[in-house]
Amino acid sequence: MHAIIISVGDELTLGQVVDTNSAWLSARLAELGVLTKSHLTVPDDQGAIVQAVRSATELAEWVVITGGLGPTQDDLTRQALAELQDVPLVLHAPSLARIEQFFKDHGRVMTASNRVQALAPADAMVLDNPQGTAPGLRLAIGHALVFAMPGVPFEMKAMFEQHLAPLIAAQAGRTILTRKLNTFGLGESVVGEALGDLMRRDRNPMVGTTVSAGIVSVRIRSDFPTRLQAQTELDRAVSVVKQKLGTAVFSEGDVSLAVVVGEMLHARQRTVTTAESCTAGLVAAMLTEVPGSSAWFLGGWVVYANRMKTAALGIPADRIAREGAVSEGVVRQMVEEALQRSAGDYALALTGVAGPEGGSPEKPVGTVWIGLGKHVSGKNQVLAERFLLLGDRSMIRERAAKAALNMLRLELLETA
Amino acid sequence: MHAIIISVGDELTLGQVVDTNSAWLSARLAELGVLTKSHLTVPDDQGAIVQAVRSATELAEWVVITGGLGPTQDDLTRQALAELQDVPLVLHAPSLARIEQFFKDHGRVMTASNRVQALAPADAMVLDNPQGTAPGLRLAIGHALVFAMPGVPFEMKAMFEQHLAPLIAAQAGRTILTRKLNTFGLGESVVGEALGDLMRRDRNPMVGTTVSAGIVSVRIRSDFPTRLQAQTELDRAVSVVKQKLGTAVFSEGDVSLAVVVGEMLHARQRTVTTAESCTAGLVAAMLTEVPGSSAWFLGGWVVYANRMKTAALGIPADRIAREGAVSEGVVRQMVEEALQRSAGDYALALTGVAGPEGGSPEKPVGTVWIGLGKHVSGKNQVLAERFLLLGDRSMIRERAAKAALNMLRLELLETA
Repeated sequence: MHAIIISVGDELTLGQVVDTNSAWLSARLAELGVLTKSHLTVPDDQGAIVQAVRSATELAEWVVITGGLGPTQDDLTRQALAELQDVPLVLHAPSLARIEQFFKDHGRVMTASNRVQALAPADAMVLDNPQGTAPGLRLAIGHALVFAMPGVPFEMKAMFEQHLAPLIAAQAGRTILTRKLNTFGLGESVVGEALGDLMRRDRNPMVGTTVSAGIVSVRIRSDFPTRLQAQTELDRAVSVVKQKLGTAVFSEGDVSLAVVVGEMLHARQRTVTTAESCTAGLVAAMLTEVPGSSAWFLGGWVVYANRMKTAALGIPADRIAREGAVSEGVVRQMVEEALQRSAGDYALALTGVAGPEGGSPEKPVGTVWIGLGKHVSGKNQVLAERFLLLGDRSMIRERAAKAALNMLRLELLETA
Repeated sequence: MHAIIISVGDELTLGQVVDTNSAWLSARLAELGVLTKSHLTVPDDQGAIVQAVRSATELAEWVVITGGLGPTQDDLTRQALAELQDVPLVLHAPSLARIEQFFKDHGRVMTASNRVQALAPADAMVLDNPQGTAPGLRLAIGHALVFAMPGVPFEMKAMFEQHLAPLIAAQAGRTILTRKLNTFGLGESVVGEALGDLMRRDRNPMVGTTVSAGIVSVRIRSDFPTRLQAQTELDRAVSVVKQKLGTAVFSEGDVSLAVVVGEMLHARQRTVTTAESCTAGLVAAMLTEVPGSSAWFLGGWVVYANRMKTAALGIPADRIAREGAVSEGVVRQMVEEALQRSAGDYALALTGVAGPEGGSPEKPVGTVWIGLGKHVSGKNQVLAERFLLLGDRSMIRERAAKAALNMLRLELLETA
């Protein structure tokens, strides 16, 4: 079964609001075995809505519309559906009663315009909105079932679960399951080559890659008649991908590098400290975004100006002058000082050229030295690596921070 | 003039990634006087891409495609355009050279698959990608100009500004100008009441408010036949809004609090340092996101664990035990220590309960003490304020960081 999702609203086509409903609906539909063919976003224009719904009903069995059901003059979805079906809009008494009740319950005055929300195309089934005043609509158009719901995400989601999900689950002839494996350290093309044939478009499960903020994710989509088969094939594909990509895979779904590192530190009862120059607190901020990070994160030093490297971490000014702030010697000492001053188990240090200024032929923008230190039985082990990172200042900082987290992750993997 | 935006990617139609490109493009197009008729999102399916582009070229003069230009087998936009035009894909030598150079410059190995990115439909103009390896494409199809760009937002944005924006601006028939004023410290409803009649929907310029990450923005859209008129009316509306909202307005457009604070420090030749507990580097990271921040940001201390507050900033353990880590006394000493150890002019300190754990009846989750210190003629002035912030852990941390930046901004406003 296939779906087409239509989002209605000037705020969307003017770019004032990002449409998150379509992504949420697509993900839920996929879980229910319905593949989304396309998302279509149109402005608050009756003709455009009619057009969009007509063509969608010719291409998909499920058409889900969000938006355009509000009380104001620019909400035209119900009018468009009536025009498309060539039927009048009629007052739906139960809806009017529910709307009046809703305003009473919330101690608000109901305006005349809210009565509009009780109108529905004569041939539509009206869908209760448990969260708001705008009821939804369900119509059979051609071979398609069309659902119209408000654009307010929490209202839309509640109505989807109440009215659509059960219906789809009952009718789904197949199951589509998806999983996302997140990798770090390999370029998208390298991942693509490693996966090779797995990424052929005609394969099922289908494997694809996406890149976001330096993370290359591998999406696996398994599409089969039964849930058992879909799950079995998905699991098989996942394990093949994991085996091909090895330790580059750090998590599934939306689990961040920081969360993974945090869990590993927590499991090993180890602590980490940071000493940051170019990232200036970003690594510490990423680590502490994780709830419960106080169990394994101690703190750190943001030694952005050279004088702070000396004042706060005791790195000799003449060393900085001699070797440069962005150097192996300085990053190694940052690690040593952070370990010693924090009495923590691990330390991450970063110093680099984030740009746009400050680059040189020997140290171009994107050059970052990252140090990883470990305190074991009274001694410090320090690993220092030089990176050349792509992107603008913000990307370079974010990628440097993630590269540091990944260095710690790989070390922790070996000390399971 | 009208545009249709096409986004390509399984990750979008599967709902694994939210499409932010279409909103960004629509906003920029509107600013350039081009109204977006619709957004269409299709999967990595050559037939679907061909269909989408064909119908779009029949409905709009500008067709902007993002995604599907990567190096892997599931990137099919260039193949689709070649099929639609019924021309072969030919190797674009300069692009291949640029791609090879790109990999050389970044010391990475170029895989065979990257060569694919140098292929272009025979009749396409190849558009340089200043940020990555995937060139863009420009084709004339029917009466439409079609632009294909990578889906990676920062690459797409750079290419839009370089290749598309100048072309559109040259051809626009009417002018829609928008400006966004950003405020901090007032709720959206308070801002709405202050603006009153200005927000009537039938006004031109049109005034609306949006909230994002604790920032209430006022968006003003001026739509007139001539640029002179649009600009004059826009400027008039902006000055009225500014006058109604006073010092709550901290910037325009996408200028962050950190940038504003940085510019003020830079103009006054003053420096700032941070001492962070609950935000753990977030304030420092926000400040150093600003290019050139080394001129006015020295560094800071991330004293997350109490033992770090003692080890790194010398805050007596018994004081922390007596007054609590989240207390006025501790935040004041954090400020004092940061000022003294950094020899900077200003210091910001934060200590609070970000949650989800750690709340108490006296100090519920969201309680944050923020200290602002200033070193003047050998003496320190310290201001400490207690905030109770709403939201989840991530929101509380972000709002605390911004509240600290805003405290500094208001102080700097008074010492112009």
